Amino acid sequence: MKKFINEPGNLEMEAARGMALAKPHILRQLPGCNVMVRQNKKTDRVALVFGCGSGHEPAPNGYVGYGMLDAGIPGKLFSSPTPDMLLKGIKEVQNEAGVLCIIVNYTGDVLNFRMAMEMAQMEGIAVESVIIADDVATQKTKSVGRRGLAGVLLVMKIAGAEAEMGSDLYRVKEVAEWAASGLRTIGVACRPCIIPSDGEPSFELGENEMEIGMGLHGEPGVLRCDMMNAKDTVHQMLELILLDCNYENSEVVVLINGLGGTPPMELYVINECIHEYLSERGIKIYDTMIGNFMTSLEMGGFSISLMRLDPHLKALYDAAAVTSIIRR
Amino acid sequence: MKKFINEPGNLEMEAARGMALAKPHILRQLPGCNVMVRQNKKTDRVALVFGCGSGHEPAPNGYVGYGMLDAGIPGKLFSSPTPDMLLKGIKEVQNEAGVLCIIVNYTGDVLNFRMAMEMAQMEGIAVESVIIADDVATQKTKSVGRRGLAGVLLVMKIAGAEAEMGSDLYRVKEVAEWAASGLRTIGVACRPCIIPSDGEPSFELGENEMEIGMGLHGEPGVLRCDMMNAKDTVHQMLELILLDCNYENSEVVVLINGLGGTPPMELYVINECIHEYLSERGIKIYDTMIGNFMTSLEMGGFSISLMRLDPHLKALYDAAAVTSIIRR
Repeated sequence: MKKFINEPGNLEMEAARGMALAKPHILRQLPGCNVMVRQNKKTDRVALVFGCGSGHEPAPNGYVGYGMLDAGIPGKLFSSPTPDMLLKGIKEVQNEAGVLCIIVNYTGDVLNFRMAMEMAQMEGIAVESVIIADDVATQKTKSVGRRGLAGVLLVMKIAGAEAEMGSDLYRVKEVAEWAASGLRTIGVACRPCIIPSDGEPSFELGENEMEIGMGLHGEPGVLRCDMMNAKDTVHQMLELILLDCNYENSEVVVLINGLGGTPPMELYVINECIHEYLSERGIKIYDTMIGNFMTSLEMGGFSISLMRLDPHLKALYDAAAVTSIIRR
Repeated sequence: MKKFINEPGNLEMEAARGMALAKPHILRQLPGCNVMVRQNKKTDRVALVFGCGSGHEPAPNGYVGYGMLDAGIPGKLFSSPTPDMLLKGIKEVQNEAGVLCIIVNYTGDVLNFRMAMEMAQMEGIAVESVIIADDVATQKTKSVGRRGLAGVLLVMKIAGAEAEMGSDLYRVKEVAEWAASGLRTIGVACRPCIIPSDGEPSFELGENEMEIGMGLHGEPGVLRCDMMNAKDTVHQMLELILLDCNYENSEVVVLINGLGGTPPMELYVINECIHEYLSERGIKIYDTMIGNFMTSLEMGGFSISLMRLDPHLKALYDAAAVTSIIRR
C-alpha cells in the first residue's frame, strides 16, 4: 500500500504535530507527547476530555476547541491512550468545575480511562464519565456491551455546549447521557486499511464483498454479502438502526462518516438515499453532517448515525463551536 | 472497484441532490438540473459563479453560500458544465451589480464559460471572468497555459468576501486576479480513481510509483518516480512551487487538498513536513487548511497550494463565510 508517511514508528506523533501546527490559535500540544488541549483554558466551566487510538483522524484532536473538547488524547495506532497520558490531559484542563471524560466503549479505553480517573480523584479532581456505545451492530447483552462509533462526536458537541453554558458537572453528564440515549450508529466496510508497520490489511473481504456492521478496526459485523448499490446498502443499515430505536415522529441529526477511503461524491449519493428512506418514514431531519469525521486510515466504507433532538438538544447542537473541524 | 453508488448514469444528479439535501438552508437546487444557488439571493452585490466537472466534490457546490459562491454548476463526471447550464446559473444569480465567473483553466471550461458569458451579455447582464491557472507542473508558455487546481477555492474565498463588502464588479475581479497572482499549486498522485461507467482506472502507475505534478484527471505531471516518504515528496513539490514564485519573507495560506482516497492522518503528516520546510525558508504561515476540498473520486494523492497574503487579502480570507464546507 502506497502511503505518504515517514517512519511508521513516528506516525502518531507526526500526525498530532501536523494537526496542532495547522491551528495553533485553537490547539496547544503538551511538550513531548500527543496530548492536545485548548488554547485559553476554561477556569470555571466543566472541562471535557476524550481520547481514542490514532488512525481515526481528525478524531480526537479535530474536536478540541471552544464548545467541544478541552483535551484530546490520541493513543498509538488503533490503541487506547494510556492511563498516564489520559491523566496528563485531565490534570491539564481540570478546574474547580470538574472534568467529564467521554469514552467510546472498547475494553481498553474503558479500563485506561477508569485508571486515569481514579488517579485524578486521588489528587482531588472531580471527574465523571459518560460511555458511548452507539453501534447497533453489536449486542447490548454482551458483557462488554456495544462498541462506540462516530456518533460520539455528536455527544461531544452537545456536552461541550452544555459545559460552556456554565452547567455543573452532573448536569453536563446527564445531558451527555440523554443525547447518547437517542444516538445510534451502523457502519459498513468494503476495503480494509493497511497497517503501516507490517503492511497487513486490517481484515479480509472477498473481491466483491462488503460487510455491514463492521467496526472501526475491522471487528466483525452482522452481514457479509456481495456489494449492494448505495440505496440497498442504506436501507439495510437504516433498518438495523430503526429496529433498535424508534425514531418515528422524531427530529434527528444525521451524521454520515467516511472511513477515510470513501470519496465525498459517494457520501453525497448515500445522503440522498438516507433522506429518501427517512422522509418516507416520517422522520424529520434537522441537519446533516457529511465528511471524514472519524476514519480508519484509508478504509473503504462509511457509517450512519442518527441522534434524536429535543428543543434543548437542538439549541446545544446549534451553539457556537470553534474547533479545527467543527465550526458554528 | 467497489463503490457505493446506484446507476452510474445518474451519479452526478444524485450527488448534487445529496449535497443540497444536507444543507437546505444554504443551498437551493434549480429544478431538473444540477445548478445550485445560494438561498437568499444577493440584490446589490456582485454575484460569483463557478463550475467544474462532477467527481471533484465537495467542489463546486460545497462553496456556495454567504461570502463565497452564488452559483455552483457541476458538469458530468470530469466534464465541463455546458454553456446552457452555466448561463442558467448566471441568469439566476445576476443582479445590477453584475456577475464574476471564476474559471479553472481547462480548454472546455474556458470555452463553455466564454459562450455562456457572451449569451449573458447579449441579454444585458454585466459579466466578467477570472481564470485560475495555479498548477506549477504545467508550462506557462503552452498556448492553453497552466491548469487550474484546488487553489481556486482560495480565490473564491477572497473574491466572495470582496463582493460581500459591496465592491463593484471591476474591483472584485481585480482583487481575485491579485489573489491568483500569488497563488501556486502542485499535486501528486499515487493511485488512480476508477471511472464508474466503464470500470477503467483514470491512469496507470506502477506498483510502487507516484507522479508529481499529475492533474486532477490524470493529466501528465513532471516527475514519475518510486514512492518517496512524505518528507521527500513535500520537498520535491515545494521546490517546484518556490522555483516558480518567490515567497521569501511572505505570509501565506497553505491549503492541503486530499484527492479523495488519502486518509486525514497522512494529510496531517504531510502538513508537518510542509511547516518544517517553509519555516526553514523564512516563509510565514498565516493559516493552514487541510481536507478533501477538490477531489478526483477516490484518487490517492494530494495537492499543496500556497497563496500570498497582504493585509487586505488577510482580512478577506478571515471574513465571514457560511457554506456547507467553509465556515468562518
